[in-house]
Amino acid sequence: MTTLQFKTPATRVTVDITAGVTEAARASGVQDGAVLVYCPHTTAGIYINEGADPDVVADVEAFLEEAVPQGRPYRHREGNSPAHIRSILTGNAVTIPLAAGRVMLGRWQHVFLAEFDGPRTRDVYVQILKT
Amino acid sequence: MTTLQFKTPATRVTVDITAGVTEAARASGVQDGAVLVYCPHTTAGIYINEGADPDVVADVEAFLEEAVPQGRPYRHREGNSPAHIRSILTGNAVTIPLAAGRVMLGRWQHVFLAEFDGPRTRDVYVQILKT
Amino acid sequence: MTTLQFKTPATRVTVDITAGVTEAARASGVQDGAVLVYCPHTTAGIYINEGADPDVVADVEAFLEEAVPQGRPYRHREGNSPAHIRSILTGNAVTIPLAAGRVMLGRWQHVFLAEFDGPRTRDVYVQILKT
Repeated sequence: MTTLQFKTPATRVTVDITAGVTEAARASGVQDGAVLVYCPHTTAGIYINEGADPDVVADVEAFLEEAVPQGRPYRHREGNSPAHIRSILTGNAVTIPLAAGRVMLGRWQHVFLAEFDGPRTRDVYVQILKT
Repeated sequence: MTTLQFKTPATRVTVDITAGVTEAARASGVQDGAVLVYCPHTTAGIYINEGADPDVVADVEAFLEEAVPQGRPYRHREGNSPAHIRSILTGNAVTIPLAAGRVMLGRWQHVFLAEFDGPRTRDVYVQILKT
Repeated sequence: MTTLQFKTPATRVTVDITAGVTEAARASGVQDGAVLVYCPHTTAGIYINEGADPDVVADVEAFLEEAVPQGRPYRHREGNSPAHIRSILTGNAVTIPLAAGRVMLGRWQHVFLAEFDGPRTRDVYVQILKT
């Protein structure tokens, strides 16, 4: 298993982690299977979507802030319940097929770490599974 | 890895892909492990839910259209940001256990490809992982 | 594959299933790979989030009840469409890396079975995948 680390510079920010994921897969030498990308934190998410136009990520961020507003009454005293809920909506992990040594992301797909409660240093685990 | 293809006939439509998934698993000959069903597109999703009553899928579609409305102001110029966001909410992949040669879908569970920006031809990758 | 069973005592309730998951992984003897935790039902979900403060789970439950309200008009006659939709939003499975015999949940992460249409007896499958 490989552990990647990312410093998230703001409260809410989305980091493109595709290069780290594909490099960890390549370094494993495994030809066929899958790549599990896993975030061990509870106020950050992992998702796959378009990476070509940064406006897509901006729209995702704006949607999540509106859909899970900071201003609702929450019971959790730390004040970061929206971050916990947003990470459940995106999920905290993705699994991508690995075939003939290639991580099978689609043409427009990138892997993103979504920070919902930064700035922090975040770990992302990359585990290779075999077919 | 097996690639399934589906033509989605409308802008928003949900396709039951269960038969293709179970057939790809059977053809692999693998008895125990898991089946990864992965969509390499950024405006379509994969999810598991009830397939017996088509009204469930209709309710899911109606919910997603209301929850991520087309009419919000979005920055992405292509006009399909709701499709990107809906695909993040459903996720673009599922992993199902494989035990004694059987894909362990529950009694009412079917696997669906949710098209949010069709009509298009969509690939779905099926990769078998071993236990 | 191991099957865990849980009796959910109420219509909507969240059950911490972390201990069952980690025990099934330990019993497998596998050192490196991943643990797939899969719910074969269509009105319950599986998610990972903070388990230290029960108020986080309470906030997640309240959010999902508001975001997918019972009072909308739904077509599915059984009246449990919100439960189906909530299970799609959380997802019905999680995959967690296994490294050196340890399930790599983060410090605050627990695995939850979210019952959206109980009380029922629910199965949860735990399958170990190898690296």
